[in-house]
Amino acid sequence: MTAMSSLSTSPYKGTRDYYPEQKRVQNYIFKVWKEVSERFGYEEYGAPMLEPLEVYAAKTGQEIVGEQTYRFTDRGGREVAIRPEMTPTISRMVAGRRQEMAYPARLFSIANYMRYERPQRGREREFWQLNADIFGADGAAPEAEIIQLGAEVMKTFGAKDSMYSIKLNNRQIINAMMHDYLALDAVQAELMVRLFDRKNKISNEEFRDQAIEIFGAEAAPSGLKKIAELLVAKGIDDLPKEIADTEAVKEMKELFETLEAVGVTNTVFDITLMRGFDYYTGTVFEFFDTHPDNNRALFGGGRYDGLVGLFGAEPLSAVGIAPGLSMTELFLQTHELMPELSTATEVYIVVVGEADKAATKLAAKLRTEGVNTELDNTGRKLDKQIKTAVKKGVPYMLFIGEEDVKKEIYNFKDTKTSEEEKLSFERVVSRIKDHRRNKANQDDDLV
Amino acid sequence: MTAMSSLSTSPYKGTRDYYPEQKRVQNYIFKVWKEVSERFGYEEYGAPMLEPLEVYAAKTGQEIVGEQTYRFTDRGGREVAIRPEMTPTISRMVAGRRQEMAYPARLFSIANYMRYERPQRGREREFWQLNADIFGADGAAPEAEIIQLGAEVMKTFGAKDSMYSIKLNNRQIINAMMHDYLALDAVQAELMVRLFDRKNKISNEEFRDQAIEIFGAEAAPSGLKKIAELLVAKGIDDLPKEIADTEAVKEMKELFETLEAVGVTNTVFDITLMRGFDYYTGTVFEFFDTHPDNNRALFGGGRYDGLVGLFGAEPLSAVGIAPGLSMTELFLQTHELMPELSTATEVYIVVVGEADKAATKLAAKLRTEGVNTELDNTGRKLDKQIKTAVKKGVPYMLFIGEEDVKKEIYNFKDTKTSEEEKLSFERVVSRIKDHRRNKANQDDDLV
Repeated sequence: MTAMSSLSTSPYKGTRDYYPEQKRVQNYIFKVWKEVSERFGYEEYGAPMLEPLEVYAAKTGQEIVGEQTYRFTDRGGREVAIRPEMTPTISRMVAGRRQEMAYPARLFSIANYMRYERPQRGREREFWQLNADIFGADGAAPEAEIIQLGAEVMKTFGAKDSMYSIKLNNRQIINAMMHDYLALDAVQAELMVRLFDRKNKISNEEFRDQAIEIFGAEAAPSGLKKIAELLVAKGIDDLPKEIADTEAVKEMKELFETLEAVGVTNTVFDITLMRGFDYYTGTVFEFFDTHPDNNRALFGGGRYDGLVGLFGAEPLSAVGIAPGLSMTELFLQTHELMPELSTATEVYIVVVGEADKAATKLAAKLRTEGVNTELDNTGRKLDKQIKTAVKKGVPYMLFIGEEDVKKEIYNFKDTKTSEEEKLSFERVVSRIKDHRRNKANQDDDLV
Repeated sequence: MTAMSSLSTSPYKGTRDYYPEQKRVQNYIFKVWKEVSERFGYEEYGAPMLEPLEVYAAKTGQEIVGEQTYRFTDRGGREVAIRPEMTPTISRMVAGRRQEMAYPARLFSIANYMRYERPQRGREREFWQLNADIFGADGAAPEAEIIQLGAEVMKTFGAKDSMYSIKLNNRQIINAMMHDYLALDAVQAELMVRLFDRKNKISNEEFRDQAIEIFGAEAAPSGLKKIAELLVAKGIDDLPKEIADTEAVKEMKELFETLEAVGVTNTVFDITLMRGFDYYTGTVFEFFDTHPDNNRALFGGGRYDGLVGLFGAEPLSAVGIAPGLSMTELFLQTHELMPELSTATEVYIVVVGEADKAATKLAAKLRTEGVNTELDNTGRKLDKQIKTAVKKGVPYMLFIGEEDVKKEIYNFKDTKTSEEEKLSFERVVSRIKDHRRNKANQDDDLV
């Protein structure tokens, strides 16, 4: 770059600038995430954006570490990565305080991540997620709670049960399917898991061809037949004996019952659900948008009992869920659930004539009362000041001239309706506080 | 790393894990930043953690870009950097919407940054900052507003004026000092600015030696004498004629007057204040802790009118301020201003006997009422459940057994006082809401 050429105004490829109107959407989604997590007794934590690369090398999965991680060597020669997800980090943190923490530990974070992927609708290189996890709790109850938390997030956004379904599976069921039912060895099983993971993204023919390759020519006919039978008989009560008799199926049934007891009924058992990460050990699940225009996975999670132990600590069971910002935005847009969000500024002070000192004082007084007050201290003509207030969408304007200051009565204007009143300072404050209460009630209705 | 060796639980060097108790401190500081910024009519924005490297190469300053930036080449061959600061990014964003935005634009963000520095007290490689900026406003008024915003942040944290002072200078005054008063050429001037910037970190002797080197042997005696005179006569009304007659000194006096009018009086003119960034063009300032245990710069800011124009947009004036998290924490600790912060969880449900289904339902009911409710769904013995609630610092426990569910009267226990009462569901809710109101009022007293 030379000093003469001008720099680009575009953000780095696959990332987004959040101008105030987009930031308000982000803040709305973050607020719901935080409120619901705290309503379930989860405590917020934060973590570094960089981690030693080895944290991911263990269990995050080949594709993400090998192809998608933003990794580099720092000035001190350390191999580091911008976090592509939170699960290894929070496992590291819990391992670091394995003895001191109170269990079950319920933890959540709202943070950004980076993966080098092809940017597309609902998928950016930099993306934001809620991560909510329980550590140190076994069985169906914490799994049901995590899924219930996800459902409560959806409900709080205004979603009805019919707008999405929750697909459930279990890694142990997958293992029984691969090893006992399909009679695959370890290498074949891994390939088959990846193939199922891509099942919705490829054609039936492609799936079939690749399955044959995995089975080998001799075993393929019976293998394909078994897969076909499995896909027809999807229900949990309708599984072949090699799978049906496992402990994992018993657990899965218990999970369905527990979910039903807490009112989460838009669930479905889906033996083809694999989830990409290598660290899952039991239940896995995925929230899936049922709208024909956005028929796709929204977010998911599952049980990962092995991660904390990788950090030299006594092993600890764990279940987590991770809704993402972009998918949530898409869901809210598709189902027309996005609320109207406006600026937090409540009043714009328009300065008439030479009243700037008095206006500055009045602004300070309004702020002391807790009113979000923007002061036009430009010295511009009235029409320009008004235009700025309108363009910013500030709900009220307060006109301050020398006469008004003397009389202590001010012109107060509703930006939307253009209605104007002459009010005392106290009335201005109470008018704005009424407006704020109404807005908060609307938000509560939304939330 | 082999699968056998265990991974380290330490965060990446120079970064911090924010466990819930540290995250609460961070959230408290973020909350004050956001509230005060919005009270002044600033609107929140967000930006990517990565930027094209060239964004910083222009004006951020040699030391940061050359030695401290986390930079690397992405998988697509792009030179990128983890943002070391926000000013170039927000300038890029404003340039990208130069025509559409309403001016003056008041913008703020709360975000994290990385610099490869030697970690030390109050300085981490990953650090968090509030950035508040006004674009498109000239003169003393917006500068005074930005400084007033900083003072209001301090006041909201409980700081008294005596706890810190605000040092002020102006890049044009520095120019007059270097060129007209000390008769230095451009290269010498740049070296001298850097020398002044380090003045508080080096000995007087070292300063003298390096100054001589910059002046050259011949000019050094008169140059040193002039510096000495300047340092004695620090007051703005007491400057040598070459500096005193400049427009910048007039502007600086106006700024002092405007600040005084809005009640910011703990200010001092300091001609040795340089501020590191290359992009400042006018007023620069620094908030400085006056406590003997923490006698150092807290944060600063200034006017940078040239940055937006670098992105090919019509030039736009700009003033900004950037308080940091770690320095704020140190300040609050030093002055004993850090409030006690507790978990957001309000009640912990202890399940007695086999009442887990009823307890789950009651938890859902409490959450519907907006109560932050943690449910112990472990099936453990009572004492273990109670121990967890105590360790987490949850203010109330609710005991739920089968008898309680039948009678619809529950044992409600204050975790701190151990007082126990038998209450109906409605009374439990109102008791917890009272507690929340008291806590909010305490917070308001703090804030």
